[in-house]
Amino acid sequence: MLLVLDGLGDRPVKRGKTPLQLAKTPNMDKLAKYGTNGITYPLGPGVVLGSDTGYLSLLGYDPYQFYAGRGILEALGSGVKVYEGDLALRCNFCTIDGKFNVTDRRAGRPDDKTASELGKAIANISTKEFSFIFSHTKGHRGVLIIRSKSASPMVSDVDNHNVGPVTWSKPIDPSDGAKKTAEALNDWLRKAHQILKVHPINKERAKKKLPEVNFVITRGASMLVEGAPLKGATYSGMYGKSVKIQRFEERYGLKAACVAGGALYKGVAKYLGMDVIDVKGATGGFDTDLNAKVASAARALKDNDFVFLHVKATDVAGHDGDWQAKTKFIEKVDKAIAPLLKLKDTIIVVTSDHSTPCALKAHSADPVPIVIWGPEGTVRIDGVNKFDEVTASHGGLGRLSNKEVMPILLGIIGKAPMYGT
Amino acid sequence: MLLVLDGLGDRPVKRGKTPLQLAKTPNMDKLAKYGTNGITYPLGPGVVLGSDTGYLSLLGYDPYQFYAGRGILEALGSGVKVYEGDLALRCNFCTIDGKFNVTDRRAGRPDDKTASELGKAIANISTKEFSFIFSHTKGHRGVLIIRSKSASPMVSDVDNHNVGPVTWSKPIDPSDGAKKTAEALNDWLRKAHQILKVHPINKERAKKKLPEVNFVITRGASMLVEGAPLKGATYSGMYGKSVKIQRFEERYGLKAACVAGGALYKGVAKYLGMDVIDVKGATGGFDTDLNAKVASAARALKDNDFVFLHVKATDVAGHDGDWQAKTKFIEKVDKAIAPLLKLKDTIIVVTSDHSTPCALKAHSADPVPIVIWGPEGTVRIDGVNKFDEVTASHGGLGRLSNKEVMPILLGIIGKAPMYGT
Repeated sequence: MLLVLDGLGDRPVKRGKTPLQLAKTPNMDKLAKYGTNGITYPLGPGVVLGSDTGYLSLLGYDPYQFYAGRGILEALGSGVKVYEGDLALRCNFCTIDGKFNVTDRRAGRPDDKTASELGKAIANISTKEFSFIFSHTKGHRGVLIIRSKSASPMVSDVDNHNVGPVTWSKPIDPSDGAKKTAEALNDWLRKAHQILKVHPINKERAKKKLPEVNFVITRGASMLVEGAPLKGATYSGMYGKSVKIQRFEERYGLKAACVAGGALYKGVAKYLGMDVIDVKGATGGFDTDLNAKVASAARALKDNDFVFLHVKATDVAGHDGDWQAKTKFIEKVDKAIAPLLKLKDTIIVVTSDHSTPCALKAHSADPVPIVIWGPEGTVRIDGVNKFDEVTASHGGLGRLSNKEVMPILLGIIGKAPMYGT
Repeated sequence: MLLVLDGLGDRPVKRGKTPLQLAKTPNMDKLAKYGTNGITYPLGPGVVLGSDTGYLSLLGYDPYQFYAGRGILEALGSGVKVYEGDLALRCNFCTIDGKFNVTDRRAGRPDDKTASELGKAIANISTKEFSFIFSHTKGHRGVLIIRSKSASPMVSDVDNHNVGPVTWSKPIDPSDGAKKTAEALNDWLRKAHQILKVHPINKERAKKKLPEVNFVITRGASMLVEGAPLKGATYSGMYGKSVKIQRFEERYGLKAACVAGGALYKGVAKYLGMDVIDVKGATGGFDTDLNAKVASAARALKDNDFVFLHVKATDVAGHDGDWQAKTKFIEKVDKAIAPLLKLKDTIIVVTSDHSTPCALKAHSADPVPIVIWGPEGTVRIDGVNKFDEVTASHGGLGRLSNKEVMPILLGIIGKAPMYGT
């Protein structure tokens, strides 16, 4: 049972303590006390991970080798249909002012109903050569599929993770396809803006002084270049190259399932051939039904050897810079995982994909804590009795990187390969 | 003085503690208290090492580069004569039932006298093309030399580390040599069985309800392909390729000797060009004369810069799943090493090659503790005051891998290379 609290790691926010240190987490502390602890620099010190590369590497897939761009993962995860040759981009609804300055990268985090309605208004826009299919997924998030014989993944991100002037997409190689795709994409962005800015919902929001949901920013252009992604082996394109993904079950001999709210995490799981379990009420937000997710993950262990349980809102609070919300949500997760501690014959791992310090409102390279807990006699008890970024660093696992986590787990369950005799 | 307790690392066996944590080890604890401590993932997290690869890597030789297969190491260590073109295999005497099912991989651990007598009965068996020379070494262990122009090392292991149906040797490349060698080896195994099963010793054992020593299982086929292994450089063959070994003394500028009971450890030492000192009463078992080994190792320091002192029974207890025996033997070793603490001008290192948890009865990927102790002023004192898997992880060396151990030791004695000026 791999429980990941997205963006959990933080920096001191009050009295020299991080949100995880401030939170009351009796269940996680119990795992720490009877488990073995360590600190993980996900991809090595000084590398900041995205959520996509974070999960690939945490699951033992070197993202430098296996990462295919965020768009495809987001599409797979949100159930958007993708065909060979399709270009997929992750999108944010955002707010721009009259001079094409991004003023809010998430347009004040519109609710699903609002964003879905606006998504429909820009769902199908075609030009002579390019078809654009936009799908809203969750909150301010969406996926854009570009379908065209001329489409190329070699186009730059419009979302530069900052507010300020719109950074229009540029071709990043000298090919005709890249040039045409960047131009067509920028045209689409302008057209979508024309539609969104006059939409009744935005007039209503303006009256309520809410940020208008009037623009889309894109990132992670990636193309499905070969074969169906979920039959046998999965294929994807990154910068024109195709990458063959070895399914999780083939790679480790472990049948695996994923319980997550957010599209991206489901996408990564599908990308690796895991079974993705949809849970009612799993939103990827603060309001997610944690009890339902935990129950579903526990049930999934009956038919699976490995369950990846993902919780998102810790990262959301970090991006919002709201340490109180982060602390509170950590405590909520801690309460919800109580049933996991009663599971028989199960190794429980709690960790994170990266830090999202509230002070930065962004991912950082700070390491994250990890605890591995198991039935009596399976893991060493290392004297650490609290689960947080600092205490974990005194644990028996020492300092790890993500690529070592799966091998360590395989070692604990006696499935690590032997070299020598 | 490098003291290695084979298979020392373990998992909690009682009250959440490992055998090493449970054992009373005042001498090792003194080394920890006045030394510098750490935790070693021998070849990295999640890699399980054999004894052969474990020692090569601990002595600073990357086994992926220098490992030549267990057979040659076992032959060198046991003093069996090996010539160019000889194929050497490590053997276990074992017990099979009437349907060629292995029921005990070590035939109830026969004593040396029993096994040696039975070894003589199958010492020389020849066919038209192949000569088989079997030599008993210690306990249930032996070495088989296959001498033939047709011999190939490309044959699979008969010993699969499990009980159950005999897994007969198969060629692992399409060559004629591999095919012929596998066939000849399987024939020899059957012939040896015919001889062993009717041997008076086995009739006697059957009466006493002891497991019959009636079959041989082989592993680690490896061939000496070029030159004498101990003159200047050593050569060996792994899967048909020749590997050049740099002698320990050339590599590090340290004249080295080895004190060990088991053949394999002596073999690794000879393979690296170390002086191997035979000690009367060194058996590689629980009954080994530890005082004699320690005295011999201490004496060896007079003519050598580096002494590798190997103790085996910790690993044996792990394989047997007997944590009480492991704990007791650790305490016995601790008592025996008292004279080492009085040595002048000597760095003492205590560590292990890998973990052999009693709960698994097999090698595991769990890390092992290491302590480096020296005369006042040579190593930092890190506040760790007990030698065990958990406390060591809090030490000043942090987390290591085997390839870092020799460089650290060279650094301590001022022999590490300088890069820059």
